[in-house]
Amino acid sequence: MSSETTGITYPEGFSASGITAGLKASGTPDLALVRNNGPRFDAAAVFTSNRVAAAPVHWSRQVISDGRADAVVLNSGGANACTGAEGFTNTHTTAEHVAKVLGVSSGDVLVCSTGLIGEQLPMDKILPGIDAAAAALDTGNEFDGGAAAATAIMTTDTVSKQANFTGSGYRIGAMAKGAGMLAPGLATMLVVITTDAVLSPEELDAALREATRVSFDRADSDGCMSTNDTVILLASGASGTTPDSSEFAAGLAEICIELAKALISDAEGAAHEITIRTFNAATEDEAVEVSRTVARSNLFKTAIFGQDPNWGRVLSAVGTTQAAFEPDDLNVSINGVQVCRNGGVGEDRNLVDLTGRNVLVEIDLNAGTDEASLWTNDLTHDYVHENSAYSS
Amino acid sequence: MSSETTGITYPEGFSASGITAGLKASGTPDLALVRNNGPRFDAAAVFTSNRVAAAPVHWSRQVISDGRADAVVLNSGGANACTGAEGFTNTHTTAEHVAKVLGVSSGDVLVCSTGLIGEQLPMDKILPGIDAAAAALDTGNEFDGGAAAATAIMTTDTVSKQANFTGSGYRIGAMAKGAGMLAPGLATMLVVITTDAVLSPEELDAALREATRVSFDRADSDGCMSTNDTVILLASGASGTTPDSSEFAAGLAEICIELAKALISDAEGAAHEITIRTFNAATEDEAVEVSRTVARSNLFKTAIFGQDPNWGRVLSAVGTTQAAFEPDDLNVSINGVQVCRNGGVGEDRNLVDLTGRNVLVEIDLNAGTDEASLWTNDLTHDYVHENSAYSS
Repeated sequence: MSSETTGITYPEGFSASGITAGLKASGTPDLALVRNNGPRFDAAAVFTSNRVAAAPVHWSRQVISDGRADAVVLNSGGANACTGAEGFTNTHTTAEHVAKVLGVSSGDVLVCSTGLIGEQLPMDKILPGIDAAAAALDTGNEFDGGAAAATAIMTTDTVSKQANFTGSGYRIGAMAKGAGMLAPGLATMLVVITTDAVLSPEELDAALREATRVSFDRADSDGCMSTNDTVILLASGASGTTPDSSEFAAGLAEICIELAKALISDAEGAAHEITIRTFNAATEDEAVEVSRTVARSNLFKTAIFGQDPNWGRVLSAVGTTQAAFEPDDLNVSINGVQVCRNGGVGEDRNLVDLTGRNVLVEIDLNAGTDEASLWTNDLTHDYVHENSAYSS
Repeated sequence: MSSETTGITYPEGFSASGITAGLKASGTPDLALVRNNGPRFDAAAVFTSNRVAAAPVHWSRQVISDGRADAVVLNSGGANACTGAEGFTNTHTTAEHVAKVLGVSSGDVLVCSTGLIGEQLPMDKILPGIDAAAAALDTGNEFDGGAAAATAIMTTDTVSKQANFTGSGYRIGAMAKGAGMLAPGLATMLVVITTDAVLSPEELDAALREATRVSFDRADSDGCMSTNDTVILLASGASGTTPDSSEFAAGLAEICIELAKALISDAEGAAHEITIRTFNAATEDEAVEVSRTVARSNLFKTAIFGQDPNWGRVLSAVGTTQAAFEPDDLNVSINGVQVCRNGGVGEDRNLVDLTGRNVLVEIDLNAGTDEASLWTNDLTHDYVHENSAYSS
């Protein structure tokens, strides 16, 4: 394995590929395969909490329950959600085909899908696609395997998303697709993270849940939850290194935060990337609640699009939360200008510069010492345009 | 009182006026006064649950606590929200001035404001405006007093909103302003309802809470809650009729539903008026939760704008709720076409006609016998435009 590899093939013990199975009308790559070459096959995963979950989510939840995964197959061009028994059978068939060509158990093959809801996958293209992807694992890709896989899972992403972390004697790599705003289907976030560190499934699960809690769970582009969201962590143990748990946790969180921000950065139709930091909160959960409530206010989001530092819309959103605060103690700064002080007018709003792409909103609850940041986007004409286009 | 009068002056015992105090740059009417001439002065009111409540809300909560109100003064052109101690003093001064000119107690004068947040009201215009409004109560308005008042409380409403109900020996009248989408400030819903029936404050309060629960609480244009929302019910007892309580409740609910729909109908930037009916729910609350969650999905709202019967976005929103249902038992109809059956593809989506302004989405949870409808709007370019305009 070359040191030139990126993303999920950056750690030792993984091969990956991305090919064109013909699922997308555009003819761009649409099927990715990730193989853990061992010697260990520990794994963890978190899934959408949406109760209307796609067939591959139901399947992969079963696969991960024993803490082992040998491979992941991912397709764009179809979500396989709301597809009933036939959809589940198709996911099962997909996993069995991967298992056959790779010589592993189908019960150790994770499946991810993204694309339109309510349509069956074209299995006559999926199965030959798996053969081609498996062949590419060994014979090589046009680019390196990690990059090829990251490209094949893109839907309306404008750039592929990868991240790496170098620990003390081990590596972590990752790829992601999706954004909060995707047309014409629903946004789906798919993330595969690999490491050559030696970690048990329980350790991987704990680290993954903590990392997603402070990263993907705090990226909220448009408040809409997909039926297919999946984050997978695979460990090959190929480095032979048992990592310091706090260093590994920090590295994993760093990668997840980098990818979460990359999703927000690439959200379709967005003109601003907004960080909403709530501080001096009674609890971290309340800080998240306040930031998320503001992030989901369409009036706030349109104001930022209009470069309008409308702090009244921030306060009116904060006022709908259950967080501890006194209205007269609230302070709000936008890009460093404290436009709201003690619940009323603060510095001159005309001092706020919102011409740039990045916006920082800081909400001081004056009710404690905890804080949290959440990343979101503005609500723009392009968002409406992208998401109102016919899905057919 | 002429039988030609409408809205709040339709019942006996009320006079009203609407004048131009000069609060609005547009020079249109901006101050309304409503007087209960008795013989009874029973009253009830409900207010925004937003914890960042405007000064007039704080004031009026105190006024209504004893179940009596003699007058209501309402201004557009300024919300008097997030205005601190000076804002509350201004509300107090407003009530005292009304009390003085009408010869009542300031503690029986309700105050409502709507307009931009974070700016002090120009009291040098408010106080002379009250004098003019009080004079107009007796000397007459260009139109009838109820209509004049309904016009003076408009902000970006395109039409004034009034409703009447004729009971057995008594009348109910009402006016409303606002919509879920208002630019450049935040939407505020102000409603004043009058009746000449004989009812105690407790009876009025119970009837008003039940009526708002099934009307204004189910109008959710864009999910954003105002700092100033107020619904007031005044009873003069002038008819001498003690109404049948179920007839009165039904009449009050009818008026409130009519006005709630009028608010959604006049929501700025909306291209569709959407009714989301959830039925076969385990409880009415769960039906409301499901309808509201769909109503707040930006992906659903943009799809409707694009005339796209995207039932996948309905299901993905339903899936985020806590309501009782099995995903495989969900049915969704859009304008009468059951596009989703048993959680999967149903009738041909191309049969759905979304070219008209009215849209009916029906969600069958198959989990009980309760139901609820909620009214909302689509998310359009005009919404983004209206709400991204500079507030200054």
